[in-house]
Amino acid sequence: MKQVFLNAHSLQESLRILFERLHLSSCCTLQNEIVKVQESLGRITASPVFAKYSSPFYHSAAMDGYAVKFVDTITASEKSPLHLRLNHDAVYVDTGDPLPAGFNAVIMIEDVNLSGNYIEIYNSVTPYQHVRTIGEDIVATELIIPENHKIRAIDIGAMLASGILDVTVRKKPIVAIIPTGSELIEPEEIRQRQPKPPEIIEYNSAMLAGLAEESGAETIRFGITKDSPEIIKKTIKDALKISDIVIVNGGSGRGSEDFTLSALKELGEVLVSSISIKPGKPMIIGFVNDKPFFGIPGYPVSAFLTFELFVKPVIARLLGTTIKENEVIEAILSRQISSQLGVDEYIRVKVGVVDGKYIATPAGRGAGLLMSVVRADGFISIPSSSEGYTSGSKVKVQLFRDIDEIKNTIVCIGSHDNSLDILANILKKNYPELSLSSAHVGSMGGLMALKKSEAHIAGTHLLDDKTGEYNVPFVKRLFPEGGIALINLVYRQQGLLVKKGNPKKILGFKDLSRDDVIFINRQSGSGTRLLLDKHLRDSGISSQEVKGYEKEEYTHMAVASAVLSGIADTGLAIYSSAKALGLDFIPVASERYDLAIPLRFMETHLIQMLLNIIRFDNEFREFVLSLGGYDVRDMGKTLFL
Amino acid sequence: MKQVFLNAHSLQESLRILFERLHLSSCCTLQNEIVKVQESLGRITASPVFAKYSSPFYHSAAMDGYAVKFVDTITASEKSPLHLRLNHDAVYVDTGDPLPAGFNAVIMIEDVNLSGNYIEIYNSVTPYQHVRTIGEDIVATELIIPENHKIRAIDIGAMLASGILDVTVRKKPIVAIIPTGSELIEPEEIRQRQPKPPEIIEYNSAMLAGLAEESGAETIRFGITKDSPEIIKKTIKDALKISDIVIVNGGSGRGSEDFTLSALKELGEVLVSSISIKPGKPMIIGFVNDKPFFGIPGYPVSAFLTFELFVKPVIARLLGTTIKENEVIEAILSRQISSQLGVDEYIRVKVGVVDGKYIATPAGRGAGLLMSVVRADGFISIPSSSEGYTSGSKVKVQLFRDIDEIKNTIVCIGSHDNSLDILANILKKNYPELSLSSAHVGSMGGLMALKKSEAHIAGTHLLDDKTGEYNVPFVKRLFPEGGIALINLVYRQQGLLVKKGNPKKILGFKDLSRDDVIFINRQSGSGTRLLLDKHLRDSGISSQEVKGYEKEEYTHMAVASAVLSGIADTGLAIYSSAKALGLDFIPVASERYDLAIPLRFMETHLIQMLLNIIRFDNEFREFVLSLGGYDVRDMGKTLFL
Repeated sequence: MKQVFLNAHSLQESLRILFERLHLSSCCTLQNEIVKVQESLGRITASPVFAKYSSPFYHSAAMDGYAVKFVDTITASEKSPLHLRLNHDAVYVDTGDPLPAGFNAVIMIEDVNLSGNYIEIYNSVTPYQHVRTIGEDIVATELIIPENHKIRAIDIGAMLASGILDVTVRKKPIVAIIPTGSELIEPEEIRQRQPKPPEIIEYNSAMLAGLAEESGAETIRFGITKDSPEIIKKTIKDALKISDIVIVNGGSGRGSEDFTLSALKELGEVLVSSISIKPGKPMIIGFVNDKPFFGIPGYPVSAFLTFELFVKPVIARLLGTTIKENEVIEAILSRQISSQLGVDEYIRVKVGVVDGKYIATPAGRGAGLLMSVVRADGFISIPSSSEGYTSGSKVKVQLFRDIDEIKNTIVCIGSHDNSLDILANILKKNYPELSLSSAHVGSMGGLMALKKSEAHIAGTHLLDDKTGEYNVPFVKRLFPEGGIALINLVYRQQGLLVKKGNPKKILGFKDLSRDDVIFINRQSGSGTRLLLDKHLRDSGISSQEVKGYEKEEYTHMAVASAVLSGIADTGLAIYSSAKALGLDFIPVASERYDLAIPLRFMETHLIQMLLNIIRFDNEFREFVLSLGGYDVRDMGKTLFL
Repeated sequence: MKQVFLNAHSLQESLRILFERLHLSSCCTLQNEIVKVQESLGRITASPVFAKYSSPFYHSAAMDGYAVKFVDTITASEKSPLHLRLNHDAVYVDTGDPLPAGFNAVIMIEDVNLSGNYIEIYNSVTPYQHVRTIGEDIVATELIIPENHKIRAIDIGAMLASGILDVTVRKKPIVAIIPTGSELIEPEEIRQRQPKPPEIIEYNSAMLAGLAEESGAETIRFGITKDSPEIIKKTIKDALKISDIVIVNGGSGRGSEDFTLSALKELGEVLVSSISIKPGKPMIIGFVNDKPFFGIPGYPVSAFLTFELFVKPVIARLLGTTIKENEVIEAILSRQISSQLGVDEYIRVKVGVVDGKYIATPAGRGAGLLMSVVRADGFISIPSSSEGYTSGSKVKVQLFRDIDEIKNTIVCIGSHDNSLDILANILKKNYPELSLSSAHVGSMGGLMALKKSEAHIAGTHLLDDKTGEYNVPFVKRLFPEGGIALINLVYRQQGLLVKKGNPKKILGFKDLSRDDVIFINRQSGSGTRLLLDKHLRDSGISSQEVKGYEKEEYTHMAVASAVLSGIADTGLAIYSSAKALGLDFIPVASERYDLAIPLRFMETHLIQMLLNIIRFDNEFREFVLSLGGYDVRDMGKTLFL
């Protein structure tokens, strides 16, 4: 196989090398500590727990009634009742009371007649009837819970019941996290001021600490370490004194300011200095002072993935536990993915259940796209021997999220509108069990996704050139057999976004042909692109005259961001995106934004709850209006059936 | 339908009444608090989180290389390379560095030749090539996570990256737990002394606190409250001042020392005073000071179940979340269960996967049998309209444990031996992912379970009267087609257990016919019962002569416990059970205890790992020997194939 990354180990080799070395390490002798049983929830037992006392440890009444000696009752019957003298042959007991010495059965209070100093009984009783005998629940010395067991609430009850007050558990491994990078600033620094280039808010260490805690470890985060070999080495030495595992984040590559590898070489042993995985290639694994050391890449998705692949199993090993595997489902891939040979690649995907089938849609692949992990439902791993999968392939998806959450997710594919974010939020607020997941591929892409049964709803604002009508002509053309409803969400203003104060004095579409104006476009198939093209035709401007026409973005906010950052002077987008980023807005059109919904989904619980919010929820309506540029006069109305 | 429990509400009614009232309560106005993002792991968002800054918030190099202006590069080609002046037309940048003002693309360091003060380039570049543009990951104002979202490590990263330092989360509901009962003692009291009747170690409150914490609540445990109406009322009032939910544990029935209901009547509103569920009938639900109040029964299984059914969903409601449903599987019931009409009954079951089918075996049903919950894998709920299920029925099991754990469980059914507990523990220690679950139904029951494909292995010690041979004749008779191996576990001493000092001077089987000696028997089908019957025959004693012959126990420890507690004077059991409870032991036989294993399982990973331990693990061997009364000379040997 082609060696794609020079000197890189494969994923499998790296794991094998790491665990062979770990096995030899003294840190594999697990460390224990004793905690009070009441404080042991979630800890891992370090030795088996045997009962100290039986439970119950004396015979006790299981019912309210009278304790008797069973031999005294042998002749009792309906015809010839027996009389037992109170406090002599029969003693009143409440449930839980110890049986008096010599007594060995209980008659329920309902089954006797009290007459003076006697009770009258009508049946003989069997030995130990209605008695909780010693050890009925727990017999002294029996095994309550084994070693390597994660303690649950019920186990706490059983341990205390059997007289166990303290329990030996695994000490939590301590993971030291050292963020490095001269450009990094502590999050607290931006409490009073804005960050400025080249600063980067240091966020990886908090994420890594969270992952370590989720894995059962304790964490110590060091302050940000500048890119200096000496300071990094000193910090690693400090960390080794107080931790079981050391993570250095950033500087794991081969750049001029990357010092993790050289520090490790000087202080300990390098096992692996890069790995043929994507994201996550610049990953360093080693040992210092017989303790595992990880040089984790700076890109957040690389950091997330390499932690999950390498650090998490090491923490589990030190705790003596196993890792709960992600649930794996088989899904249909909605778009093709290609992958390099020789690299194990992890593709984040969104997953939805449409018409009973799992549909997986690949998300962004960049190592810097943290939000693609936040929004992902799982990932597909493409082995190094594969060049990827075609659209429609069956793929195995390892889920991050609970499968029930995924089944309760409305899959929305199509044009983006900011009101969809608000809708997603209000849906989750009112119905915590439901989610709305939206993928932005433009209006036409959304309708195509409905056609391929890959989505429940599609957001669409397609203007028909001939009729001037929105959406309906497109739905009729794509679905001649019918079966699609159009429910209005909003009318919204589209306009040209320009920098605050409009420095280039852009007033309308005719300015797009100016030589000094750079435009940022939307992808073809999007409603906004159709709107632009119509207006360019109406103004007699050819697309060649528009500088930047070929540079495409996928969302309104991305267009706004491009204008704000100076990538372009202007772009066509909705008002709320201008307002969000403080841009000026030159309105050029009001357009109708509908949700296209197949009729077969209309009566499902998922869609009914969504329509409930669109039609009746005032908070949603007010929130959308507060974004600006929206008209909600037809919100929730069925405009085509 | 027959009303079985007088005045009891059904489960469904009770839940409806509780949630209708909760909906009107002021405590349903969720309370929020602000926490630092770094400390928000696992908390529930109380409002949507929108990005404050874009990430990145400036254009930065995505590669190590040279920042250029793309217009300068248009004419570059292999044939006519271009020269760009360093620090003028081209500026060196490391990955992550901001692009200098006016620059808009990066050429990778590998793609240029450095010559003096110039770089030589061979290709034109596209705008923003190898540049992380502003907002590539996160655009300011976009939705990071919605309301009602449980914060994960990755979300912490994304929030910090977008400049969010604090997050509004739901305040954890505070659950006050008041254990009541004059017989209860604090666990700490038995640190220096043994408990004595009528004392009961108070363990429910720690279990309930653990359950509440697992549900996301904080807990305040009150000290044990005596059975006094005035003290209970005062404690409830104190609890209301500092909590959102009040639980009184114990005293929820109608006995003479049960005061929960009267306290609730005086202080607030009673919604439900008993529920037709089993276990859990004496359950009280009410409101005091507009806060939910639960009178939870004292029996531990009732306490566990009623908490799960009623308190857990209330905590979830106050947190604005949903409860993660237990996984449900369909299993084959290995024994019949009958249930009362009119009662919703919850049956604890053990579940194993044998030959690819889930097999559910009912466990003990008593409300006091906490260990039956500790050892259960899940439960079957039998609705009030059903009288139960026949053996072999398909039933739905709600799992407590992870399905992967269940798939990795070796199901052992048959005779009990204490070495099986040790084996279970050493297996879990060496292979944390594996479990051994054993059910004790006697040797013959175990072989029958193998025959019905309900177990992987069966522990057996059946003595053939005619041949004097152990196990082999029985296996040959039951499995004429073959396919079963017998692997020896131990030889063990069976003997008569008697109280310390042998007060009744019992010396052998002949003493069992004495009038003053009460025997405790094992169930028929057990190897120990066969052993007894053989020796009685050999001694010419009929079973009628043995007092207590008809009283049966299912394990050696239960027999030992019966002797210790005086239920019987003697019983036949293995040495280790006598040693465990400090009884005297009169040896009467050494017997062979084998594991019967179908050949089709022998090569499975589960059985191979188990045999590894039996055959090669010194810790296991030493541990068994330390119990006393065992001979391990053939441990792990195949004695029949």
